[in-house]
Amino acid sequence: MTNLTNLPAFEGPQCPLPLTHAERIVLGHGSGGRMTHDLIRTIFQAHLGNPYLNAGNDFAHLPLSLGKPDIGHLAVSTDSHVISPLFFPGGDIGRLAVCGTVNDVSMSGAIPLYLTAGFILEEGLSLESLERIVRSMRIAAEEAGVVLVAGDTKVVEKGKGDGMFITTTGIGWIPPDRPPLGGACAQPGDVVLLSGPIGDHGIAVLSARGELGFETEIQSDVAPLNHLIQALLQSAPHTHVLRDPTRGGLATTLNEIAQQSQVAIRIEETAIPIRPAVRAACEMLGLDPLYIANEGKVIAIVPPEEADAALAAMHRAPYGAEAVRIGYVESQPAGRVILRTMLGTHRILEILSGEMLPRIC
Amino acid sequence: MTNLTNLPAFEGPQCPLPLTHAERIVLGHGSGGRMTHDLIRTIFQAHLGNPYLNAGNDFAHLPLSLGKPDIGHLAVSTDSHVISPLFFPGGDIGRLAVCGTVNDVSMSGAIPLYLTAGFILEEGLSLESLERIVRSMRIAAEEAGVVLVAGDTKVVEKGKGDGMFITTTGIGWIPPDRPPLGGACAQPGDVVLLSGPIGDHGIAVLSARGELGFETEIQSDVAPLNHLIQALLQSAPHTHVLRDPTRGGLATTLNEIAQQSQVAIRIEETAIPIRPAVRAACEMLGLDPLYIANEGKVIAIVPPEEADAALAAMHRAPYGAEAVRIGYVESQPAGRVILRTMLGTHRILEILSGEMLPRIC
Repeated sequence: MTNLTNLPAFEGPQCPLPLTHAERIVLGHGSGGRMTHDLIRTIFQAHLGNPYLNAGNDFAHLPLSLGKPDIGHLAVSTDSHVISPLFFPGGDIGRLAVCGTVNDVSMSGAIPLYLTAGFILEEGLSLESLERIVRSMRIAAEEAGVVLVAGDTKVVEKGKGDGMFITTTGIGWIPPDRPPLGGACAQPGDVVLLSGPIGDHGIAVLSARGELGFETEIQSDVAPLNHLIQALLQSAPHTHVLRDPTRGGLATTLNEIAQQSQVAIRIEETAIPIRPAVRAACEMLGLDPLYIANEGKVIAIVPPEEADAALAAMHRAPYGAEAVRIGYVESQPAGRVILRTMLGTHRILEILSGEMLPRIC
Repeated sequence: MTNLTNLPAFEGPQCPLPLTHAERIVLGHGSGGRMTHDLIRTIFQAHLGNPYLNAGNDFAHLPLSLGKPDIGHLAVSTDSHVISPLFFPGGDIGRLAVCGTVNDVSMSGAIPLYLTAGFILEEGLSLESLERIVRSMRIAAEEAGVVLVAGDTKVVEKGKGDGMFITTTGIGWIPPDRPPLGGACAQPGDVVLLSGPIGDHGIAVLSARGELGFETEIQSDVAPLNHLIQALLQSAPHTHVLRDPTRGGLATTLNEIAQQSQVAIRIEETAIPIRPAVRAACEMLGLDPLYIANEGKVIAIVPPEEADAALAAMHRAPYGAEAVRIGYVESQPAGRVILRTMLGTHRILEILSGEMLPRIC
């Protein structure tokens, strides 16, 4: 079911119609790219729109004052996890579900505190697999320092699910003195940092699916980034944007930020770290690593005077040893991401269209 | 796939083994009855247990003080909704997802404020159905006065899901002066109230599945109960327990409370309101209405001196016009629910074993 190209999938045989004419859900609607954005805009925001949801971040920033003096805000985020297979090199759906939500909450500048989990189990799932996954959730939650406070379990008949889906919701606390931070806060002059090599998660999952056709030692980068984020914010308190490049990859995530902030983001191809094994796998499969999902990386956009401190803090933190500076922010062309290639030419990076790797998270 | 009996399903052909010997998930694990409880205890609580989760309520009661003077608590609840079919008389999965979570949060005594929703869509779902369901969520959220603040959408291949699953998480605020309230707070002498007739939701869903074999005008009772609950708590501020009898029905929910509070709950069969059409459907199908799911009813256990005020408040509130007193709490036999039948005999009501009506919520 994998469409191994990053050409717009809705022009291919899998997805015959663009969203505006489509009458049915196709895999591209779950890509995190253009079709997902269109679906959110035309259906979810059209009917459920409100300032929290329309902010377009992976978290909602909610007042907590309830008529009392300002005591901070809540950050809330939710994610449904449908990854296939359930186990992959470097992790499983349980670790992914905890880390994915801890990370989305952390990207608000919040300290994640509480998690909930809703399990949809398919009849026939082995209890041994369920127990391994639940144990993995505990280990990830302990590492992140969050507590799973509520859960729910439903079972569907064989053939009406796929082993297990987990939906996690995270709740964090944003201190009252935290400067504004979010996808709309990037400013011309800012520096763009990336916490490490990209593409590991997507390629590790493809490898677990047997779609590589060769052996690889690549492990998913799935990890909780809240301790790294807190260290970064201590050293660079005026950080403008934090976002994890998950579905749609680095290129799509930078596009979201460029559009929310109405700025141009310029990045250097030579500066973007990619492991040789990931690069080799992408070349063989015709994939662009800039569009491959990551589950333990963060993009930080910081004012230039705090960039060195931010980078040093990331280097000292868990999961940040390979952090690098990859580019900067300009005012024009607003809403665009421009890559300076290894050859010195410039290429506009578009948002992911259609679906590249379904069910990667 | 429906096992139309409330005998322990794991003794029947669908579920050959009790949980302790089972190696795979069966539908009974999602029933809300004994198998669900066993699964929660042996896997989820064993690995993820903490005081919030182990409290055994449908909500978590979380400190919000964060080092400041007591400003109240958060109530958080999550539910995955896998109901089949997506549309049924009186509602759809969208209304169910909003109301189910609003109600679980409200049962803590909290004022529900925020909702999140994670959508798992099956390839091929019509956008028209998705839009109808999202619109229905908005109407229910507006009625309840909650805001949907964060969402996520994933798509799975055809045959790996079933139209749509929705996981909602709700966040509410519990005022600092709210007396303790929860499944463990029932006391001997308390009065047991029920907000209206039982069984409507389960029978409406069976009817939508074409499993009744005859026409019925029964509509699901799915509704947001937060305004009723707030009215009840204003009139009966020392209410000890609020719980909605969803999966597993009235009998299972009363058993949960009897066990959490270590009290006996005695109820009168003649006092329990059941619509004639629901009673007729149950008799034809061999179902016990005491075990059928409801989605717009609440059990309130209140001290005797506040019982009349509580009942009057329910009568004035939306969805409470048919509220009645159905029984009382005693100290012995602790952990038991005893029904005095129409014939004057006594019957111990057990918790639901196995699965009666799968995918009812």
